Amino acid sequence: MDAIREGWFSEVSEMWPGQCMSLEVEEVLHKEKSKYQDILVFKSKTYGNVLVLDGVIQCTDRDEFSYQEMLAHLPVCSHKNPKKVLIIGGGDGGVAREVLKHPSIEEVHMCEIDERVIEVSKQFLPNMACSFSNPKLSLHIKDGFEFMGMHKGEFDVIITDSSDPIGPASALFEKKYYELMSTALKPGGIVCSQGECMWVHLELIKGMVDFCKTIYPSVSYAYTTIPTYPCGQIGFMICSLDKDLDFENPPSPLSAEEIEKFNLRYYNNDMHKSSFKLPEFARKALHCSKSNSVNGL
Amino acid sequence: MDAIREGWFSEVSEMWPGQCMSLEVEEVLHKEKSKYQDILVFKSKTYGNVLVLDGVIQCTDRDEFSYQEMLAHLPVCSHKNPKKVLIIGGGDGGVAREVLKHPSIEEVHMCEIDERVIEVSKQFLPNMACSFSNPKLSLHIKDGFEFMGMHKGEFDVIITDSSDPIGPASALFEKKYYELMSTALKPGGIVCSQGECMWVHLELIKGMVDFCKTIYPSVSYAYTTIPTYPCGQIGFMICSLDKDLDFENPPSPLSAEEIEKFNLRYYNNDMHKSSFKLPEFARKALHCSKSNSVNGL
Repeated sequence: MDAIREGWFSEVSEMWPGQCMSLEVEEVLHKEKSKYQDILVFKSKTYGNVLVLDGVIQCTDRDEFSYQEMLAHLPVCSHKNPKKVLIIGGGDGGVAREVLKHPSIEEVHMCEIDERVIEVSKQFLPNMACSFSNPKLSLHIKDGFEFMGMHKGEFDVIITDSSDPIGPASALFEKKYYELMSTALKPGGIVCSQGECMWVHLELIKGMVDFCKTIYPSVSYAYTTIPTYPCGQIGFMICSLDKDLDFENPPSPLSAEEIEKFNLRYYNNDMHKSSFKLPEFARKALHCSKSNSVNGL
Repeated sequence: MDAIREGWFSEVSEMWPGQCMSLEVEEVLHKEKSKYQDILVFKSKTYGNVLVLDGVIQCTDRDEFSYQEMLAHLPVCSHKNPKKVLIIGGGDGGVAREVLKHPSIEEVHMCEIDERVIEVSKQFLPNMACSFSNPKLSLHIKDGFEFMGMHKGEFDVIITDSSDPIGPASALFEKKYYELMSTALKPGGIVCSQGECMWVHLELIKGMVDFCKTIYPSVSYAYTTIPTYPCGQIGFMICSLDKDLDFENPPSPLSAEEIEKFNLRYYNNDMHKSSFKLPEFARKALHCSKSNSVNGL
């Protein structure tokens, strides 16, 4: 199947063989080949504007909140006193938008390798890219490895909002990257990364959990549901230098007033907790620390 | 898009406009027009055999366990002493297979309107249809309304495993049907039904929750993830005549040994509890009783 044919965009990839999500296209808004990847934005019939990188859906106006809220608030609420956050990738701006909702956050640094993703998002995804005008946000157009090599012991939270482990983001799923992140964290710091889908990439995830356990004293895996990602869900690798951290019972839960004020549509304290509860097949395979146990009710 | 074209089956429907799941086809195994619906079975490249009714995927070998386990064990474990279960629909046999794993269950009655679904499942979905040889199972080829009209106060649990609210199953999403089920239950009985997807049918679900509250003292809504249903998830309407039932803390949780012995791959006690925790947008819309509250952690 071609990417756009007879009015439908289809997301065919060897990363999820034999299955494919399609969205009906109303209008192609933008197409370019940046230095790093193919960038496509189209207006869909029922999911708003859609950003596609190298043929893979990155976000849509209609369901992006699920991914962005969970990727941001899971680690930030798990930190006792988060002040300085680094986002690797995240060029659409959505994760920065969520992180910046926490008044305790003083500085957000975003390190995105492809400036064109930011520019395109500013033009076509204004609800996500709104964060780029926030004075607390500093933008670094750079390779994430290079940036972190120059910043040691600086960050409370590092969030990796990357595409899949093919193309420019592939190194972000490797042990070396998780080692490097651990050196850029302050004591007690937390990392949270796009962690692929347990229905199609369980072996990849298991490998990541295993090497993370050799670097971080606390390691867990959570997930969110989201219609336009393969199989309708995506996971998060979350690790902390704090050996006593219980991700399911985070030290900085949001109040009902904050949930309202932050205008959250997916994340709440119950979703935080239950996102670590895995289906039996995944729980057995991953055996993360503290969370994901087979506790009774 | 045609249903099968260039080796891919595509699930286009006005029930989920503008989006479509496709599966790569290895071989079409069976095609017929029964008295009630179009029946198609194909062997997919990566999801095993797939049953399709009226163009909509009903189950695949690879991920059916998620739906069948949750639809069966959510209500059965929520009952204090379940002995007699009625399944409306469920012609593939998967829900009966799960219910019959509970040794306390003495009788399962299945009322399926389309005998051809059962025969086709016996031939092409043997892992689901294995339940048809169980002596505790009685099969009734009948309309569910008619069957329940003749059985009053008989069942501990009624499970409705139906297709979507277009075609033969449309009446199963209406108030009259939930009223009829309440008369077929024993005191303290529980109903659990396929409840569509909160990402595409929130208004329909909201309407169902509202009318259920006028019939049952305890009403809640849960969901499971499943790659081959629209948006990658499906929900469950679950109601009880027992006003004190807290679905999240069911009276008959499974032991770790039972989870192992039942060979469960999705359901466990943590998934039971967390399946009632809804994303903020759905929690706000549905406001179910007891469960789905905005409790802190």
